[in-house]
Amino acid sequence: MPPRPIVTLLTDFGLADPYVAAMKGVLLSLNPDAIVVDIGHEVRPQRVEQGAFILEQVIGYFPPWTVHVAVVDPGVGTERRALALQTPRAFFVGPDNGLLSPALPARLRSQAGDGPCPVPLPPEYRAVSIENQRYFRHPVSSTFHGRDIFAPAAAYLSLGTCIDALGPPVDSVLALPPFRARRLPDGTLVGRIVHIDRFGNLITSIHREDLPGPRLALEVGGRQVAGLVRTYAEAEGLCALIGSAGHLEIALPMGSAARALDVDIGAEVLARPL
Amino acid sequence: MPPRPIVTLLTDFGLADPYVAAMKGVLLSLNPDAIVVDIGHEVRPQRVEQGAFILEQVIGYFPPWTVHVAVVDPGVGTERRALALQTPRAFFVGPDNGLLSPALPARLRSQAGDGPCPVPLPPEYRAVSIENQRYFRHPVSSTFHGRDIFAPAAAYLSLGTCIDALGPPVDSVLALPPFRARRLPDGTLVGRIVHIDRFGNLITSIHREDLPGPRLALEVGGRQVAGLVRTYAEAEGLCALIGSAGHLEIALPMGSAARALDVDIGAEVLARPL
Amino acid sequence: MPPRPIVTLLTDFGLADPYVAAMKGVLLSLNPDAIVVDIGHEVRPQRVEQGAFILEQVIGYFPPWTVHVAVVDPGVGTERRALALQTPRAFFVGPDNGLLSPALPARLRSQAGDGPCPVPLPPEYRAVSIENQRYFRHPVSSTFHGRDIFAPAAAYLSLGTCIDALGPPVDSVLALPPFRARRLPDGTLVGRIVHIDRFGNLITSIHREDLPGPRLALEVGGRQVAGLVRTYAEAEGLCALIGSAGHLEIALPMGSAARALDVDIGAEVLARPL
Repeated sequence: MPPRPIVTLLTDFGLADPYVAAMKGVLLSLNPDAIVVDIGHEVRPQRVEQGAFILEQVIGYFPPWTVHVAVVDPGVGTERRALALQTPRAFFVGPDNGLLSPALPARLRSQAGDGPCPVPLPPEYRAVSIENQRYFRHPVSSTFHGRDIFAPAAAYLSLGTCIDALGPPVDSVLALPPFRARRLPDGTLVGRIVHIDRFGNLITSIHREDLPGPRLALEVGGRQVAGLVRTYAEAEGLCALIGSAGHLEIALPMGSAARALDVDIGAEVLARPL
Repeated sequence: MPPRPIVTLLTDFGLADPYVAAMKGVLLSLNPDAIVVDIGHEVRPQRVEQGAFILEQVIGYFPPWTVHVAVVDPGVGTERRALALQTPRAFFVGPDNGLLSPALPARLRSQAGDGPCPVPLPPEYRAVSIENQRYFRHPVSSTFHGRDIFAPAAAYLSLGTCIDALGPPVDSVLALPPFRARRLPDGTLVGRIVHIDRFGNLITSIHREDLPGPRLALEVGGRQVAGLVRTYAEAEGLCALIGSAGHLEIALPMGSAARALDVDIGAEVLARPL
Repeated sequence: MPPRPIVTLLTDFGLADPYVAAMKGVLLSLNPDAIVVDIGHEVRPQRVEQGAFILEQVIGYFPPWTVHVAVVDPGVGTERRALALQTPRAFFVGPDNGLLSPALPARLRSQAGDGPCPVPLPPEYRAVSIENQRYFRHPVSSTFHGRDIFAPAAAYLSLGTCIDALGPPVDSVLALPPFRARRLPDGTLVGRIVHIDRFGNLITSIHREDLPGPRLALEVGGRQVAGLVRTYAEAEGLCALIGSAGHLEIALPMGSAARALDVDIGAEVLARPL
């Protein structure tokens, strides 16, 4: 007996509303054997980039052929495409607005500009525009494709339906640039806060591989922070370290760096190697 | 092998407390094959009507013979009955305080008054007062029937136990009126806000079927809102649309209608067809 | 076919971040048959004692041989041990900082002082320091042992791996004293608030078995509260009752005792039997 298929859900729907449960009901009605796993539903409303960042942090930990459904979808009901994407390792389902960027190789994403840009798919990837109404739940709401289009598509993929059945192939998808720092001529790295975690740690787009060494002078929210420490426990006051996903974090152990620095997602972070 | 049975949970317990996990432990101890799905646990404390509304939004999406457990239970430990209800399609378990209203046909619920009123069960429905202590978890707490009475009852139903084993039959249950608008002699529809979602959208008791047409003048919180638009994306500023469950919503795309209008659940909404 | 193994998760990671989902991905990659159940992820950041209290409330409701993973881990990356513990009934995995205290018999924990103290394991218990890197996920982050050490260890235990394979045995573990009241010479019971639930109920360390009788004069936050009532519904204003886990609670039905009394976790509670 093959292992039961996993379907993950990432949305900005929160958990106080019926939306996520409706999606789970649709999924389990079509595939009672699916294991549905919540990635999270507290992406800030309509913050596509934050959703993409969280998705990128987790997909590597799931088994091959997991079906990842992501819905942060300010353009629902407009002409934006509904996408199903097959990589050499997994399936992805969601709006074509950059949210599914982590499904794509970083080398392709670096061709994207500041916002979401179309990047061509490499040959070992397939993507379709989900348009075959046979695989929709009817009637289709114009405000909730998560329930009526994405959840059914994911259920069918988890049942083994060929991705090509869902709609016509597309040869490029919208992608965000990789979560990496930009380097100025003087060597300064420029990144920004892409997520703030529950501890108030500021997770930045500066990656371990962007850094020439472990000694840094950081600037964020008008304040200087020295780095790097190796663990939260060895820090005193504001500190910088490489977080568990390889990204530079600014933390205030036993406190909140976000509150101490009064900064939010999107704020610029400068790192000067010493 | 029949599909594994689904048991859903809807409560006002939140997720920071051990209550929901205790219920899941009890459920899985009795039926290790149950698939437990959270509808949500952030119903406002003791807001039975909001709980009923959320339940109504999701039950249609789950497979036949799902067991829905709902616990919003200000009267726990008093004389209010513990109810198990079998419809032609599903099971429901929870306090007899109106929370399980969505299990009942709308035609019956329209006999209810403003608050929860007893309505007689039609022949194809069965309900029992859960009183057979053989199906309780012991000792029974006087403040947590979710764990000691409702979760075990749901587990036994999911195992195939006949509903009649759980206690004596009852021939009427408390129900709330349907979530529909009232019509004034001049044609104005009167509804109220029954839920506010994570985006600050105001979900009202006015249903698509209450509306004679798509052109409306709305009044809520002392403000005028024109309607209807079809998608959030095509709106500019405050707008009204039919949400994914068929109810009239007032929304502020990229903002919060609840904050902009400074209104809360229960506030009156007037809709004048144009 | 034996029942599928249950793995529970309790953390202070919240649900807005990718951490819990990464742990679930690791777990399901190693054991696709595991049933993963969330105990909760909203323990206050780094409040080990609150985490231990919540764990204690739920473990008795899960089936034998459940694997409980708990991560509230301010010392992650330091010398604190990573622990796997086998009791006569279940497995526990987490940092050796007192969080896993509920796994131990109360008679042993009463040997602990005010904070976490080492207590010797009785013969029917086994514990190991998880050090065998064969059972780690690599590379091991210095800030996220939940994903790289605890989740894999739990997955292997759920697969039937012998606990001794995970690392060298330890003969004592850090434990917190039991959640019980201290008795002053004049008979007054001294406890403190160990958790505040979603309803604003103050859950105290005073246990039903500490009380000589049901008539009490309580003092908390400079206010007097009379007790006990049996259910929330029979109270008028601030009241005290024995909660569903046997602990003395102070509640304000239809309101929040925490807000009314302006107290927080850790505040002292005095109970004078009348």
